[in-house]
Amino acid sequence: MINVGIIGATGYAGEELIAILLKHPQARITGIYAKIDKPSLISEVFPKFKNRIDLICKEPDIKEIISCCDLVFLALPHTVSMEIAPKLLKAGKKVIDLSADYRLKDAALYEKFYNVKQKDKLNLKYAVYGLPEIYRAKIKNACLIANPGCYPTVSILALAPLIALNLVELDSIIIDAKSGVTGAGRKLAEGLLFSEVNEDFKAYKIDSHQHSPEINQELSKLAGKPIKATFVPHLLPLSRGILATIYVKKAQNAAKHAAQNVIGLYKKFYKKEPFVRIKQEGSFPRLKDVSGTNFCDIGIKEGAEKIIIVGAIDNLLKGASGQAVQNMNIMYRLAEDTGLL
Amino acid sequence: MINVGIIGATGYAGEELIAILLKHPQARITGIYAKIDKPSLISEVFPKFKNRIDLICKEPDIKEIISCCDLVFLALPHTVSMEIAPKLLKAGKKVIDLSADYRLKDAALYEKFYNVKQKDKLNLKYAVYGLPEIYRAKIKNACLIANPGCYPTVSILALAPLIALNLVELDSIIIDAKSGVTGAGRKLAEGLLFSEVNEDFKAYKIDSHQHSPEINQELSKLAGKPIKATFVPHLLPLSRGILATIYVKKAQNAAKHAAQNVIGLYKKFYKKEPFVRIKQEGSFPRLKDVSGTNFCDIGIKEGAEKIIIVGAIDNLLKGASGQAVQNMNIMYRLAEDTGLL
Amino acid sequence: MINVGIIGATGYAGEELIAILLKHPQARITGIYAKIDKPSLISEVFPKFKNRIDLICKEPDIKEIISCCDLVFLALPHTVSMEIAPKLLKAGKKVIDLSADYRLKDAALYEKFYNVKQKDKLNLKYAVYGLPEIYRAKIKNACLIANPGCYPTVSILALAPLIALNLVELDSIIIDAKSGVTGAGRKLAEGLLFSEVNEDFKAYKIDSHQHSPEINQELSKLAGKPIKATFVPHLLPLSRGILATIYVKKAQNAAKHAAQNVIGLYKKFYKKEPFVRIKQEGSFPRLKDVSGTNFCDIGIKEGAEKIIIVGAIDNLLKGASGQAVQNMNIMYRLAEDTGLL
Amino acid sequence: MINVGIIGATGYAGEELIAILLKHPQARITGIYAKIDKPSLISEVFPKFKNRIDLICKEPDIKEIISCCDLVFLALPHTVSMEIAPKLLKAGKKVIDLSADYRLKDAALYEKFYNVKQKDKLNLKYAVYGLPEIYRAKIKNACLIANPGCYPTVSILALAPLIALNLVELDSIIIDAKSGVTGAGRKLAEGLLFSEVNEDFKAYKIDSHQHSPEINQELSKLAGKPIKATFVPHLLPLSRGILATIYVKKAQNAAKHAAQNVIGLYKKFYKKEPFVRIKQEGSFPRLKDVSGTNFCDIGIKEGAEKIIIVGAIDNLLKGASGQAVQNMNIMYRLAEDTGLL
Repeated sequence: MINVGIIGATGYAGEELIAILLKHPQARITGIYAKIDKPSLISEVFPKFKNRIDLICKEPDIKEIISCCDLVFLALPHTVSMEIAPKLLKAGKKVIDLSADYRLKDAALYEKFYNVKQKDKLNLKYAVYGLPEIYRAKIKNACLIANPGCYPTVSILALAPLIALNLVELDSIIIDAKSGVTGAGRKLAEGLLFSEVNEDFKAYKIDSHQHSPEINQELSKLAGKPIKATFVPHLLPLSRGILATIYVKKAQNAAKHAAQNVIGLYKKFYKKEPFVRIKQEGSFPRLKDVSGTNFCDIGIKEGAEKIIIVGAIDNLLKGASGQAVQNMNIMYRLAEDTGLL
Repeated sequence: MINVGIIGATGYAGEELIAILLKHPQARITGIYAKIDKPSLISEVFPKFKNRIDLICKEPDIKEIISCCDLVFLALPHTVSMEIAPKLLKAGKKVIDLSADYRLKDAALYEKFYNVKQKDKLNLKYAVYGLPEIYRAKIKNACLIANPGCYPTVSILALAPLIALNLVELDSIIIDAKSGVTGAGRKLAEGLLFSEVNEDFKAYKIDSHQHSPEINQELSKLAGKPIKATFVPHLLPLSRGILATIYVKKAQNAAKHAAQNVIGLYKKFYKKEPFVRIKQEGSFPRLKDVSGTNFCDIGIKEGAEKIIIVGAIDNLLKGASGQAVQNMNIMYRLAEDTGLL
Repeated sequence: MINVGIIGATGYAGEELIAILLKHPQARITGIYAKIDKPSLISEVFPKFKNRIDLICKEPDIKEIISCCDLVFLALPHTVSMEIAPKLLKAGKKVIDLSADYRLKDAALYEKFYNVKQKDKLNLKYAVYGLPEIYRAKIKNACLIANPGCYPTVSILALAPLIALNLVELDSIIIDAKSGVTGAGRKLAEGLLFSEVNEDFKAYKIDSHQHSPEINQELSKLAGKPIKATFVPHLLPLSRGILATIYVKKAQNAAKHAAQNVIGLYKKFYKKEPFVRIKQEGSFPRLKDVSGTNFCDIGIKEGAEKIIIVGAIDNLLKGASGQAVQNMNIMYRLAEDTGLL
Repeated sequence: MINVGIIGATGYAGEELIAILLKHPQARITGIYAKIDKPSLISEVFPKFKNRIDLICKEPDIKEIISCCDLVFLALPHTVSMEIAPKLLKAGKKVIDLSADYRLKDAALYEKFYNVKQKDKLNLKYAVYGLPEIYRAKIKNACLIANPGCYPTVSILALAPLIALNLVELDSIIIDAKSGVTGAGRKLAEGLLFSEVNEDFKAYKIDSHQHSPEINQELSKLAGKPIKATFVPHLLPLSRGILATIYVKKAQNAAKHAAQNVIGLYKKFYKKEPFVRIKQEGSFPRLKDVSGTNFCDIGIKEGAEKIIIVGAIDNLLKGASGQAVQNMNIMYRLAEDTGLL
């Protein structure tokens, strides 16, 4: 039984972590922490958990956390994680960080996009990017997981086979992504008010979103060459889910794979993956199919010169807390889908 | 041509006032004011008004307002109106106040429900409650209109015929009201975030809402006896509209009206009203029918002992800005529906 | 391991049954049936179940069902269940019927509200109304469960303590209920189109809904006297959940319970119930807290003469499929919350 | 005063036409027709129009229509318009057809995408594509207007300046469009049910939508060369509005326009257009800004090699009925925005 702590439990990702872990047969929540006015039962913060869990949510107390937890999920705003993670790691705890603090290997890029310095270069070096489909072997032995962003998760999974197999023009990638509102967190901002978002739709941070460098970093690694994808996120008037429609031009050498169609290549690439589902030809994902699940569904339309890929995930599960637990399962050699089906 | 100022133009009621007045053939917006960081084109605050209006929105400057406006709409938070209204009234301007500051004739009740003292007792005395269907004659000659609250508007209109005709047990009135989210204004509160309201529904301020005394004041006046209705508001996951389902017991003396059914009595009561529509038997209002209009639709189901009344309005129009313009039209002897159809 | 069949698997309640049973450690889905054009993998009908279940959904074949199932859930439209249930019961199978066919003990009432004759009077006699909080003992030994309607579930649970303890005027009960759209099933009707329901809200079947006699039947049994509650359902623009706001007058004799407040009485009444949660004073349920759960949350506001009760459930879980599985758990002596947390 | 008939008045476009024309000072609705069970007051079909209009909606009667109307709007399903239009045209009436029947000049393409033959080749030849920003001069003297589709309207307006000025690689155009649900009409289809669309999002008819050839036809005309844009529509969980995010590669020769930025070119191109608004640099359209209006808002992000254009319209107004009335205004030499502000 893994003793698990959650810091930042009062946000959407924290709430989701609690929900998953309450059903997880091999993990037990032993500490719940957040920036909070006064210590309160977590079942008062989230009445949905009443009769399910009795713990009190309080301000993080590192000593207590170290004494009661084996592994700690950090569901914190960016920049707060790198204050706390080093202390936990030093005490020999495992850490899964859902923030962006350890995702970008290039500290200068982090500073550019998050407007603060990356202060924990030591652990940054050892942090493993927690996308199991790409980094499973490293995750197994990691102490610190940089849990991927929601947009990067779906974008990378939707593009990885094409890029790994060298099938696309690397400068042609366009990612038109649409996210539900929980992606922005439980944040008091006028743009997140119901009366603003409801019946509205818009693009935002066009080609300047902080997930852009994260996507590019991982795609570039897969390609072995620098990639700068065009990335335009949009805000959907719904609570959960990201759907990305991705456009690429086929590479010249794509002919060599002509024997197999692209859908076949995707199926092969993800054959053993428990949480990636490739749609049959002519069939495409919809948010409803992945909402409330840890699955990433991918549909592909291959044209003569272009390929259109549609990927969908639940931003709070495969895009955050579900993937975090998937990483925990891998780190503890549990069946990867434990607690996630 | 009436020169009109709007103070508090950046809220939902202010936005709606601008939209209505831009189509109003007899009024011209000459000043736009709000609590705002720096003066900005109102078409930058609300890009929907681009190419429609060129005015700059700035902090209210009483001198300027007095010099450029004949009538001023105050679309301000409660307690701010009573700071500004006296100055405008003193300068001979007409004022239509959309806040609650001048609605409750009993200053003690105001203090109890709004947690501040009513500081302008002089004008409170002269303020006319701006429900045209009840107070049209007084509105004609008023200088200060206390524009009714959204819940009171629909509740009073739905009950007025029964109470005026003495047909119900006065202690039996139950108002179960459901409002869209704009009713709460453009306010940064966690409970108004999209991810909180979407796919949710709840009752709030059960029998303790600040509109309760306003409803009771007006129903009591109509009855000539004190009435304390049970009032439970709920928050709907939609932007605009209020629907109230109202339950009453018939009075013993109701028999005297037996010759005419209740629907007939409502039709007669509201015969000349341009903005009240009584549904045929078996037919009831839905929000879609009144949304975007200044109408109040009312449906009635008469049982042997009980009557159920369903009333619906657009909370931003008949429940706020539409009614405010209706009042202006009355004050200026214009056709009452000018700019409102 | 219980072998379970589902007939009517392609509706919302059927979909939900599959989702629950896939997580149920003591049950196994062995047959999936529905009115369907041609046999299809259920994971093609519901792509969300891909990689989770391999069964084919086909037209019901009684022989096959009898051979492969111990218990059968009927998630069928009203009137179809009573064609199929007798055959299954005769073969010794247990049946949990989610339709209304066996709920009303008075066949004449059934005919009046459903416009068809109740044709299976024999089994109607033995059918147990599957509300565990009231009928647990009978459910244990039942072969045929009439799984309660969604509105009745929340209405009865919210009123049972008051009525059982004789604390309310029986002719004063008003139930103002609001339901999400899945309550109406996956039915092609103009009134259920997105563009009709979205941003709309309305009352419907005012005091004439088919769940009215079901509520009255059960409340009357609890009271030992006939009750005719006023019941007005409304349609919410959201997918899941019912919230009912209930108004009652205190009975004269209520004084005898004065020592204990009403909330205390509710807590005592439901003390051992795993799925009923009573809110603290001043706190009331919201749909989000019960959505996706089998809980019924109840909040109470006690006035001098009136009591307001707010109850909330997920209409597809405690109001349908969750409760059905709860009944199965009871019938098979499993922990009542197995698969439901 | 123009006497106007509407055929197909009971759909969303018809409803919107009535709403607009009721406010239009130079037009009068003289006939309302639709496929309807029995003649009914249009205010019973749409209770929102009660007290606003008294006409009866009935099955179309060509003789009557000819006798009472000068101009007829056809808000009919595809393939029905071309049965009716010839009769009206022959009688000297002006016709604005909101269906697709006269949009594609290549009858073979029409047949391919709509699965029926174009049967009225004569009038097809004379029909003018009713996009005022491109065809104003021809619209002035037209008898038959093929009112553009909603997706084509926003796509063409967003691309016209770039293509007319020869600034983009013609084979690089990608249109990722997102539409509200009214775009599909008031049609009984499972995919349009509230519980299916709500909280969902998906792509559909990927690169095979019937608006694709319409977009290509018009872009090709503007370019003077054949264009085959990639077009992927998506379904938004909201009622009204289309937002299209468009990606193009700059043409080699684009350098010659280097002196002026692209936003400047757009502003110049649309300088005199009453219903096209170009956003300032760094600012992009959102649906709320155009919803309920006849405006098309366009925002542009110019990169070193790519240009991203975001266009937004209300699909029922600039994308259907608003544009139809704009065309009528042009045909009758009225101010183009009459009734549309």
